[in-house]
Amino acid sequence: MSYLAPLREMQFVLYELLHSDEVLPALPGYEDATRDIMDAMLNEGAKLTQNVIAPTNVPGDRQGCVYDPETKSVKTPDGFREAYKQFAENGWTALSSPLEYGGQGMPHLLNTVAEEMMCSANLSLGMYPGLTHGAVNALLSYGTDEQKDYYLPRLISGEWTGTMCLTEPQCGTDLGLIRTKAEPQADGSYAVTGTKIWITGGEQDLTDNIVHLVLAKLPDAPGGSKGISLFLVPKVLPDGSRNTAFCGGLEHKMGIRGSATCVMNFEGAKGWLIGEAHKGLQAMFVMMNSARLMVGIQGLGLAEAAYQVSLGFAKERLQSRSLAGPQAPDQAADPIIVHPDVRRMLLRQKATIEGCRALAYYTVMQLDISQHGADEEARERADDMVQLLTPVVKAFLTDEGFFCANDGLQLMGGSGFTQDWPLEQFVRDARITRIYEGTNGIQALDLVGRKMGMNGGRSVKRFFAMVDGFLKEHPDAPYAGALKAALERLQKATLWLMQNGMTDREQAGAAATPYLRLFALTTVAFFWSRMALVARQQLDAGSTETDFYQAKLAAGQFFIDRILPQSLALMAEIESGKDSLMAMTAEQF
Amino acid sequence: MSYLAPLREMQFVLYELLHSDEVLPALPGYEDATRDIMDAMLNEGAKLTQNVIAPTNVPGDRQGCVYDPETKSVKTPDGFREAYKQFAENGWTALSSPLEYGGQGMPHLLNTVAEEMMCSANLSLGMYPGLTHGAVNALLSYGTDEQKDYYLPRLISGEWTGTMCLTEPQCGTDLGLIRTKAEPQADGSYAVTGTKIWITGGEQDLTDNIVHLVLAKLPDAPGGSKGISLFLVPKVLPDGSRNTAFCGGLEHKMGIRGSATCVMNFEGAKGWLIGEAHKGLQAMFVMMNSARLMVGIQGLGLAEAAYQVSLGFAKERLQSRSLAGPQAPDQAADPIIVHPDVRRMLLRQKATIEGCRALAYYTVMQLDISQHGADEEARERADDMVQLLTPVVKAFLTDEGFFCANDGLQLMGGSGFTQDWPLEQFVRDARITRIYEGTNGIQALDLVGRKMGMNGGRSVKRFFAMVDGFLKEHPDAPYAGALKAALERLQKATLWLMQNGMTDREQAGAAATPYLRLFALTTVAFFWSRMALVARQQLDAGSTETDFYQAKLAAGQFFIDRILPQSLALMAEIESGKDSLMAMTAEQF
Repeated sequence: MSYLAPLREMQFVLYELLHSDEVLPALPGYEDATRDIMDAMLNEGAKLTQNVIAPTNVPGDRQGCVYDPETKSVKTPDGFREAYKQFAENGWTALSSPLEYGGQGMPHLLNTVAEEMMCSANLSLGMYPGLTHGAVNALLSYGTDEQKDYYLPRLISGEWTGTMCLTEPQCGTDLGLIRTKAEPQADGSYAVTGTKIWITGGEQDLTDNIVHLVLAKLPDAPGGSKGISLFLVPKVLPDGSRNTAFCGGLEHKMGIRGSATCVMNFEGAKGWLIGEAHKGLQAMFVMMNSARLMVGIQGLGLAEAAYQVSLGFAKERLQSRSLAGPQAPDQAADPIIVHPDVRRMLLRQKATIEGCRALAYYTVMQLDISQHGADEEARERADDMVQLLTPVVKAFLTDEGFFCANDGLQLMGGSGFTQDWPLEQFVRDARITRIYEGTNGIQALDLVGRKMGMNGGRSVKRFFAMVDGFLKEHPDAPYAGALKAALERLQKATLWLMQNGMTDREQAGAAATPYLRLFALTTVAFFWSRMALVARQQLDAGSTETDFYQAKLAAGQFFIDRILPQSLALMAEIESGKDSLMAMTAEQF
Repeated sequence: MSYLAPLREMQFVLYELLHSDEVLPALPGYEDATRDIMDAMLNEGAKLTQNVIAPTNVPGDRQGCVYDPETKSVKTPDGFREAYKQFAENGWTALSSPLEYGGQGMPHLLNTVAEEMMCSANLSLGMYPGLTHGAVNALLSYGTDEQKDYYLPRLISGEWTGTMCLTEPQCGTDLGLIRTKAEPQADGSYAVTGTKIWITGGEQDLTDNIVHLVLAKLPDAPGGSKGISLFLVPKVLPDGSRNTAFCGGLEHKMGIRGSATCVMNFEGAKGWLIGEAHKGLQAMFVMMNSARLMVGIQGLGLAEAAYQVSLGFAKERLQSRSLAGPQAPDQAADPIIVHPDVRRMLLRQKATIEGCRALAYYTVMQLDISQHGADEEARERADDMVQLLTPVVKAFLTDEGFFCANDGLQLMGGSGFTQDWPLEQFVRDARITRIYEGTNGIQALDLVGRKMGMNGGRSVKRFFAMVDGFLKEHPDAPYAGALKAALERLQKATLWLMQNGMTDREQAGAAATPYLRLFALTTVAFFWSRMALVARQQLDAGSTETDFYQAKLAAGQFFIDRILPQSLALMAEIESGKDSLMAMTAEQF
């Protein structure tokens, strides 16, 4: 039942597919990101997540967080505080933050691999430091020097955590409806008043202070989302006094029960403006974008955890005989991994996880290049890919994380449904990832409504050119034919969107979700073709890791045979347009 | 949040699609199943499930069942006992049972509609009387007159409940591995010894007695599933003494927490053989087949419940403006039902639910005809459809029930994930329906391995002829072109299966799950074409229910545009064969 960090799989993507050990150390500031150092840190991360973090996962779910209305405090599950402390003290909160504020200055890619491990081991616990990254990024981009100097070292070291306070009872997706107010004070601070809901880590007992980043409106704010400003509101003020930002209660949720999801009441709490007045949405997107990639990684991490447990079960559980005759004649029945339909569920997980890992790590390495690239052109090209692929990573990896966890549960039968096994918790935990940091429907609208059209469609053109370039360079790559057909289908869908969605935004809205999925399937097929090419080259060169590389080729073939064909259905769905969605009046439903 | 039985939708399928008010009263024994009587009973069922049953659902989930190890007894959630009592006293347990044992002798179809309501209102509570039907059916088919006279009236009245004791720790799907033993006693009874797990209602406090139907092996039993016999083991013996069949504990489960899922220890418990020695599997299939149809209905009922709540939310929740410009300019934002992507999630539910309801009710009406048909030929034809469609109903309706509940949760965003709304419970409850009474993978193997080949493929030929006949008779029916293409695809897949799966059973196993889904999508498309034809005829004839019939046409079109195209992907998946599933050794995973 225990988690083992899939280091060999991670290394395959990092070094053999992405050559991060050549690319990253060549970037100014990432000279230390050599393979030796990366591997040493990943080995440490594996030990910590396997031995310290993972054991807190199931007990944390059963115990949950407890709110004390007397003190307005929250008790996290037993063991969380100690595990978090060890995580922070060993430097994991500081991994990819700048050296000047006490960070380790390592690439985001390394942090992402560590985050995958954390999410496999205990998503609820991982969310406390995970959200802190958003606060750090917002401060780095928009904080004053004074704010940076005071808050960043404490957030980066993990001494304090950060939150993102966006949602209110009447507004989630539509932040223009925010009612929280910020009144300017004589000393240059602001008095923030309002209620925020679903605030992850809004209150907890892991750290002594919590730094809330709060969206609110100034008295002179224009209407809608253009009138939102961002404020920093610490739980404990720099003078040591308790700020009037209190937890009003906890949500009772389907999953991530070890994560404190708080109602936060700001009662004239003292805060400071971050960035410019009325420009809070821009700062929020800085927090949000890194958070969106991280949520994609959560889906990946949960899928990996579910796969490991269900694979172990499939190898152990004896039930019925192989359709090809007994495989374990000395036992009462064969292990269920002999059955084609069980393998279908295992390979759905394996092929999806490995393809998604490649997509996610690639995207995060582009993020590193976009920030550390040697020249403007390289940074721009990388940023284009990050912008384009962020909603794809967020939505596809969380949808698939949920589906993979469900496949794992399903192949375990009744056992998967009981709490004797962690599968049902993985499914419950995975469910939220499709919703928070922008629902997956919102990700799809972001892709078709914003990302595709950016800079005259430059990103998507570059993406097509990249896949096309690979096919031209490697016409005999594994699955090249299927990939070419998928690319052409995606290009056709893109043209359909350009022709129909520009003039009629409801057409774009109607196509968005199947289009994002079509985009994702094509992208993952591209990475599978590249990974299979590496595997074939290794086998041809006489590698002794034959099992590993043969499994790569088999999993890739499964993806092409049994997952990629979904693009046929998605294409038909896109081309059917908005008519069947919009035909009914609301009353006719 | 409350449940409203969708009587108009139910009546549409019963009368306008299936003409049950003409077909059923024409069958010997079902003369009373007129529309007046059916409607009167459905109205009563609606009142009971809405007002008495539904209010117990959420509290029952929170409280769960509690086991007392001292007394080995189980306390069901508060209110369950009273609600069950009212359900039984009003005759709902007796609806479709024979008059001679105190039943009401009404068609299974009526009972199925009532079961749909029950499953929407409280699946956990509905399972106690639901499982009793299996015991009643087994006794009716295989009990002695003495057994029938003593047990049936008490089970049918709901005074007692019944269980199905199949699974053991080492065997679920593979019942040949059963270890429970039955030793013949001098008085003609048997001493049953062994442990059964996952026994729904194995112990409860709703009734004074529980009748366990237990699979066990006689001392001279041949190995494997051919050596299984069925025994009746009551909790309280006819002489009033307590039998040695005890609950050893409860499972802690992801969902259906109000349903007591018991470990049952039979400690030399007194039992009686049902049917012939070593022929228990046959009797078990009698229990199982009706249970499988019922589990399909559970999926349908949960999907309907989820749809109602999420539809209400979509009409109320104000967030963002329509992509076509403000629709509710006097409010801060538009209700989210204006958004194409929200409608996609609503229509996925609506189109699936209504299509699945037609498929399920059709199948159950065939069950009625198979038992009450006037002549052998009619009974045989109807039985062919029941046999063929039972695995399709079980697997497709439960897969889709889960997906629909998830779509409902998704469109509600964070609200759907909290326990302030019942969506997360519907998702948790729906999860088990894909597993119990034979996992959906087993259903698919049943379809391709047993049902398709029965009587030289007679059932599937008759099914194709029925769809083909409809298309010939109504070449201009709505969606006729798409249905024809889907039918041809299914026929091609069937041919592929015949050519490949007969000689190589692993090929059949590899194709099974996508084939079942392809079969289901085609079948539901067939029913949508028929339903849309009715709707069009009603509109052409000037019906005043224009909203209702227009919505039918829109939902049907959605199914054809956005769900049926999945058959393209499934076809590719089937034709890819077993190679990518079987390429890896177990060790390479």
